[in-house]
Amino acid sequence: MKIEFWFEFASTYSYPAAMRIEALAASRGVSISWRAFLLGPIFREQGLPDSPFNVFPVKGQYMWRDMERTCSRVDIPFRRPSVFPRNGMLPARVACCFSDAPWLPGFVRAIYCANFDKDLDISSPAVVEQCLTALGQDGAAIIEAAQMPAAKEKLRAQTAEAMQRGLFGAPSVMVGSELFWGNDRLEEALDWSAK
Amino acid sequence: MKIEFWFEFASTYSYPAAMRIEALAASRGVSISWRAFLLGPIFREQGLPDSPFNVFPVKGQYMWRDMERTCSRVDIPFRRPSVFPRNGMLPARVACCFSDAPWLPGFVRAIYCANFDKDLDISSPAVVEQCLTALGQDGAAIIEAAQMPAAKEKLRAQTAEAMQRGLFGAPSVMVGSELFWGNDRLEEALDWSAK
Repeated sequence: MKIEFWFEFASTYSYPAAMRIEALAASRGVSISWRAFLLGPIFREQGLPDSPFNVFPVKGQYMWRDMERTCSRVDIPFRRPSVFPRNGMLPARVACCFSDAPWLPGFVRAIYCANFDKDLDISSPAVVEQCLTALGQDGAAIIEAAQMPAAKEKLRAQTAEAMQRGLFGAPSVMVGSELFWGNDRLEEALDWSAK
Repeated sequence: MKIEFWFEFASTYSYPAAMRIEALAASRGVSISWRAFLLGPIFREQGLPDSPFNVFPVKGQYMWRDMERTCSRVDIPFRRPSVFPRNGMLPARVACCFSDAPWLPGFVRAIYCANFDKDLDISSPAVVEQCLTALGQDGAAIIEAAQMPAAKEKLRAQTAEAMQRGLFGAPSVMVGSELFWGNDRLEEALDWSAK
């Protein structure tokens, strides 16, 4: 069985989900299709000019505290980024362009750690390249490929597909046509896929 | 240890939380302070003229499917109400005015079942009275008391307190100054209270 994991590198709750999903899926014999997308166009379609956590500050204030507790419960480090939301377009293009590469899951985790643990600017080519190099890859060549018109178009199309299939936030898991939203639904989605 | 359970009778996810919380709290030796409030004034403060599930239809569509799955997982009946959100002011006044009555938890569950299982109009005095009578109470007298100026003021003040303390949705659990939002956080809040 295969599930689709839809993630956005700026999304806070996608971080613990991305850190946990591979082990959870492996323990159930489920494989993962890694689907990067951008939330900006989806939020704008809903009339939101920014992350809902910024549009509704009282919700944002809660989210930051809840993230501390959530990461602590699953034992992953967390530091509130000094910029939120960060622009995740470049690493999303890489993730979209190289979605089947064996190093992809490690790259996804490295970018999330850069944003939500190390407080690094994930829109910077130097940061993205460093994440790739640390995985033994040719960072410069990968970034070049991910900036070609076809790669840009692939991410645009994947974001349009997300919107068309009813995704409105991240992380989201699709099991066939069944949508599960949020780090809180990860286990339920995986249980569903094993039905 | 005592926790505060903040609920709104129109709120979908408050339904499974209200059905589950008493047993979960009892199993941990925790007691519950039942705090009814209204979300309308809080949403309006955020610039939302209606439930976020109506303002953002794609999120609402997801919520209804998620509610089906969530209620099925915890084995409680669920039928999508023909009106959403329903006006829960009258039962909230009752719950606020009689928050310490021994029949209160049963009343809360009865109103939620009326809304989310039986599809009844919980703003109707007849429906509220029926819920009270079924619990062996003098429904007419209780409803009369809950409509007195002091009772109305108590609910207004409780809603203002919710806003002042950073609540933005329901259900919410407060453990001291620690806020937990959503049916998904019920177990975590209770674990926190037992720390």
